Amino acid sequence: MIKAGIVGGTGYTGVELLRLLAQHPDVKLQAITSRSEAGMPVAQLFPSLRGHVDLAFSEPSLETLGACDVVFFATPHGVAMKQAPELLARGVKIIDLGADFRLKDLATFEKWYGMPHSCPDILAESVYGLPEVNRDAIRAARIVGNPGCYPTAVQLGFMPLLKAGLIDASRLVADAKSGVSGAGRKAEVHALFAEAGESFKAYGVNGHRHLPEISQGLAGMSSEAVGLTFVPHLLPMIRGIHATLYGTLVKDAGDLQALFESAYANEPFVDVMPPGSTPETRSVKGANTCRIAVYRPQGGDTVVVLSVIDNLVKGAAGQAIQNMNLMCGLPETAGLTQIALLP
Amino acid sequence: MIKAGIVGGTGYTGVELLRLLAQHPDVKLQAITSRSEAGMPVAQLFPSLRGHVDLAFSEPSLETLGACDVVFFATPHGVAMKQAPELLARGVKIIDLGADFRLKDLATFEKWYGMPHSCPDILAESVYGLPEVNRDAIRAARIVGNPGCYPTAVQLGFMPLLKAGLIDASRLVADAKSGVSGAGRKAEVHALFAEAGESFKAYGVNGHRHLPEISQGLAGMSSEAVGLTFVPHLLPMIRGIHATLYGTLVKDAGDLQALFESAYANEPFVDVMPPGSTPETRSVKGANTCRIAVYRPQGGDTVVVLSVIDNLVKGAAGQAIQNMNLMCGLPETAGLTQIALLP
Amino acid sequence: MIKAGIVGGTGYTGVELLRLLAQHPDVKLQAITSRSEAGMPVAQLFPSLRGHVDLAFSEPSLETLGACDVVFFATPHGVAMKQAPELLARGVKIIDLGADFRLKDLATFEKWYGMPHSCPDILAESVYGLPEVNRDAIRAARIVGNPGCYPTAVQLGFMPLLKAGLIDASRLVADAKSGVSGAGRKAEVHALFAEAGESFKAYGVNGHRHLPEISQGLAGMSSEAVGLTFVPHLLPMIRGIHATLYGTLVKDAGDLQALFESAYANEPFVDVMPPGSTPETRSVKGANTCRIAVYRPQGGDTVVVLSVIDNLVKGAAGQAIQNMNLMCGLPETAGLTQIALLP
Amino acid sequence: MIKAGIVGGTGYTGVELLRLLAQHPDVKLQAITSRSEAGMPVAQLFPSLRGHVDLAFSEPSLETLGACDVVFFATPHGVAMKQAPELLARGVKIIDLGADFRLKDLATFEKWYGMPHSCPDILAESVYGLPEVNRDAIRAARIVGNPGCYPTAVQLGFMPLLKAGLIDASRLVADAKSGVSGAGRKAEVHALFAEAGESFKAYGVNGHRHLPEISQGLAGMSSEAVGLTFVPHLLPMIRGIHATLYGTLVKDAGDLQALFESAYANEPFVDVMPPGSTPETRSVKGANTCRIAVYRPQGGDTVVVLSVIDNLVKGAAGQAIQNMNLMCGLPETAGLTQIALLP
Repeated sequence: MIKAGIVGGTGYTGVELLRLLAQHPDVKLQAITSRSEAGMPVAQLFPSLRGHVDLAFSEPSLETLGACDVVFFATPHGVAMKQAPELLARGVKIIDLGADFRLKDLATFEKWYGMPHSCPDILAESVYGLPEVNRDAIRAARIVGNPGCYPTAVQLGFMPLLKAGLIDASRLVADAKSGVSGAGRKAEVHALFAEAGESFKAYGVNGHRHLPEISQGLAGMSSEAVGLTFVPHLLPMIRGIHATLYGTLVKDAGDLQALFESAYANEPFVDVMPPGSTPETRSVKGANTCRIAVYRPQGGDTVVVLSVIDNLVKGAAGQAIQNMNLMCGLPETAGLTQIALLP
Repeated sequence: MIKAGIVGGTGYTGVELLRLLAQHPDVKLQAITSRSEAGMPVAQLFPSLRGHVDLAFSEPSLETLGACDVVFFATPHGVAMKQAPELLARGVKIIDLGADFRLKDLATFEKWYGMPHSCPDILAESVYGLPEVNRDAIRAARIVGNPGCYPTAVQLGFMPLLKAGLIDASRLVADAKSGVSGAGRKAEVHALFAEAGESFKAYGVNGHRHLPEISQGLAGMSSEAVGLTFVPHLLPMIRGIHATLYGTLVKDAGDLQALFESAYANEPFVDVMPPGSTPETRSVKGANTCRIAVYRPQGGDTVVVLSVIDNLVKGAAGQAIQNMNLMCGLPETAGLTQIALLP
Repeated sequence: MIKAGIVGGTGYTGVELLRLLAQHPDVKLQAITSRSEAGMPVAQLFPSLRGHVDLAFSEPSLETLGACDVVFFATPHGVAMKQAPELLARGVKIIDLGADFRLKDLATFEKWYGMPHSCPDILAESVYGLPEVNRDAIRAARIVGNPGCYPTAVQLGFMPLLKAGLIDASRLVADAKSGVSGAGRKAEVHALFAEAGESFKAYGVNGHRHLPEISQGLAGMSSEAVGLTFVPHLLPMIRGIHATLYGTLVKDAGDLQALFESAYANEPFVDVMPPGSTPETRSVKGANTCRIAVYRPQGGDTVVVLSVIDNLVKGAAGQAIQNMNLMCGLPETAGLTQIALLP
Repeated sequence: MIKAGIVGGTGYTGVELLRLLAQHPDVKLQAITSRSEAGMPVAQLFPSLRGHVDLAFSEPSLETLGACDVVFFATPHGVAMKQAPELLARGVKIIDLGADFRLKDLATFEKWYGMPHSCPDILAESVYGLPEVNRDAIRAARIVGNPGCYPTAVQLGFMPLLKAGLIDASRLVADAKSGVSGAGRKAEVHALFAEAGESFKAYGVNGHRHLPEISQGLAGMSSEAVGLTFVPHLLPMIRGIHATLYGTLVKDAGDLQALFESAYANEPFVDVMPPGSTPETRSVKGANTCRIAVYRPQGGDTVVVLSVIDNLVKGAAGQAIQNMNLMCGLPETAGLTQIALLP
């Protein structure tokens, strides 16, 4: 059994990690830390876990976490990089669901996150945890930067097109929509039910922190320079991301459906839908799946890709466990075979 | 492996049965029938099942269903009673999620459902499938009438009080609220998003079909005649039932919390919450759990019980599988250990 | 034109006052104060007001407010009572949408609100602003305590029954449900979309601040001592309150429908629905209307009343303007004829 | 007073026309027809209208409708064109909220709507009712084709850019999102609360009927050939459209904010928001307003426009009344000054 620890388990990615890990056949939940809630049983904060998780939140300590095989950081940026060196030194594998180990370029990290990076050497060693791109490197990694939610949906949607060099990489558009749980379990006015309900808006149009992360990932798929317009929006629902992607064909498209099906033929968690499908976010609610459909409307030279994930699963906790499975030599799908909850 | 069949799998209880049975360790999905959708792969209608369920809908036939060990009827009333005799004759166990085998009194059935019962002898033999009340009889049953969703939440909430004779059985109030999925996957104006969203109303105040079912159940728990006022309401959400129950103490209440905890101490799917808790429906979303809290506001002689379930799980498909487990000699919790999806 | 001021206009009752007052034919919006937002144009905080309200928030000052004919306090309890004496001294009429002038009994106020009352004499003079009960007194009042949202829905529903002495006043049940806007525009975790959405729960079962307010009101309608069990619940929607009220008949009911229709025949803002109706909260969304239906299920001795309002209109800002109209000698319905927004 | 009639008033545009017309200072509601509901009081179907609209639905008859000054068709395509000739002959002005008089090209109409047009001469005479484009022609028109909801939001968003020739007209992208009320009040499974709630999807990617309407409109604004990719999506909310528009600059952009502000400086129902704003759909809920923001992310050559309307108001009934005001010589804003309902 893999002994797993969680740092910062009071948010939505934390409780989702707990839900999935508590049901994982090869994992023992060893510790979950929260400075603010230390001492409180986890199931008191999240009654859905009553009868399934007996742990209480504990003070974060090197001793506790050092006894784990793998530690998940479900924390704001800046936390994981502080604790990573000591944990790695003790042989603990690390998966950071925050942003500390996503951006390879130090200056970019510092620009978008407004702080210096405290362990550039570990950043250099870390692997970006998108298994469909970096599977082998993840298997060998000691520390993984788990992708953001938008970046997961957008990269998986564009990848076959960019790798095939079919679209103009300098003129990509990603119109993305996220459920409110993406904003986290923080007391903020804009995320109140009475503010976010029965309404819809864009945000971060002039620059969202996921933009450099997506651009970095897309650049790795293309031989051309990447130019991306990324507009995120807030959906009046809890879970789910829908990315609608637009690219311009620069050569004969061939059979786009076949291209996508072949690209993901062996991927356990990417589902290319039949032609004409419009994937619904609810079709992946609670599941570690990305569903994709590809279109060429009116046979023109614009390609449209629809890509949906559950932001808390394939966009966060589920993908983190997929990475853990790879890092720990477990079957990649272990503990991740839940069927989406529909309706 | 238990071979399971489903009749009428195009509704919400149908797809929920599929979700749960596809992940059940001891079940093989053998057949799912739908006259209207025969030939269509199940996963085409419900993309959430892609990669998990390979079956196609088939015409309902005695041959197909007769080859099953157990058949679930997820059909409107009137269907199961037509097919039950022949299936039972072939040794198939039956669990009816419809209303044909819930009401023991023929006249009551005929009054509320507007049709004669076609197999009164089988009705007499059938067992009402509330395991917390009838566990042993269910184990021995060939045919089970699976309880309605409201009746499950209300009966489990009142049971400890009625069995202890603490409240006036002639003056019970059940104010119940249900998510829209309880109305089924039928094209009806009142269940449209634009009708049921951002609104709340009562319905069926003068008489709802679950009233006689609840009354029958409560009568079995009390030595007094039962009088129940039952007012159901429609919630602007998909899954979940919350029953708020009111009773008047007729004797010294003693320790109500202890009464409830003791009543359900050995029940795997009933969770008595700590004093002062207010169970949320989301704490059981997707899980086969009923969570209950009991109150005596201001120390007066009114007892208030809060009881929540997922109407599609403990209120339908999950409870049906719990019954199947009992009828087939499997562990009662097999395939039913999912943790609720929160948030 | 009546010159109106608002203290504390950054919450939901504040913006609703602005919406209604900006369209009121006899009112000039004179000032709106907010210490935290002073200087910011109101329409910057609430873009819905762009083009309709040109005011900016100002520091609360006696000078500004003293120049108004009427001042609305849309503030937490404890604010209005501080400022009331000076404003009254200047001849300003006051309508407090908070709780400072609702409870007549000082000890009750202090018990439930945890602070001493700073102007008991003004409290004694103030009038409880439920026009259907106190119309004449409101007309003559200098200061009005505007009722809470739950108290409005519950009192209007019980009044005809209590006045007629038809039900047992000592054994009343009010099962009430409110949209999330009732919790205000405060950054609190429990009111987040991802917490309150797709879920339903009770709260405050052991005692909610509206309980003594309702009890005080009901006591005024009955010759018997009043005993009330009040259970509020949180609905996954923004606006609307639905109170489901239960009473036990103690004498021949006669024609309940006629009783209600007659009781409210001359009330412009109470609508008794036809027999068999189930009022939806959306039927009053944005409107200053209370819609009511009355039932006697199965002809038994339990009476059920369904009462719906928009918590921000008839439950707050609309009723406050109704009170202003009365206090200022305007037609009672002036500025309050909006039709509910449906769907 | 203008005598107004409505054909087909049982849908959402119908009830919205009723809400607005009942409060219009210069209009008398004369008749509302519905074959299926003839005889039923309108307020019985829509309780929100109780006390405001006394009419009952009547059989559609030439006599009734011929006595009106103006008739609104809130009907599916194919109905208005049948009745238009006779009504026009009687001097009745017509505003069709359906699709019969939107597309000027007969072949295009017949291709997308699958039926021949029955009165091409009247179609030729009719005016496309987007006042910001065709105000003068509308003033003189006998018959107006009221724009679709998506087309209104998209055209108003692109217009300043296309008229200025700033963007490549051959490569436009409109990523549009609509609330469920856009699907109408029809009993269809995909619009059920339990289907459309807590989920999000695209639809009609290969071709939506609003595509040719938008293309026709945009073509009129540009000297270049127009190429549009239009992807509509379904939002889990009732009212509101958000169009996110993408264009590629082909010349120096200059001050885009100033361009938009100047373009709409005199428009009573188009609001250009300050730089950096992200308009929320709720800011126009119930109001006849289009709010727009314009961006040039990272200073690149992609322009992003955000455009929001209430699909039932500026996208349907409100715009129809705006057209009526113009056609009848009333002030353009008469009856259309409602403030959006927020929250």
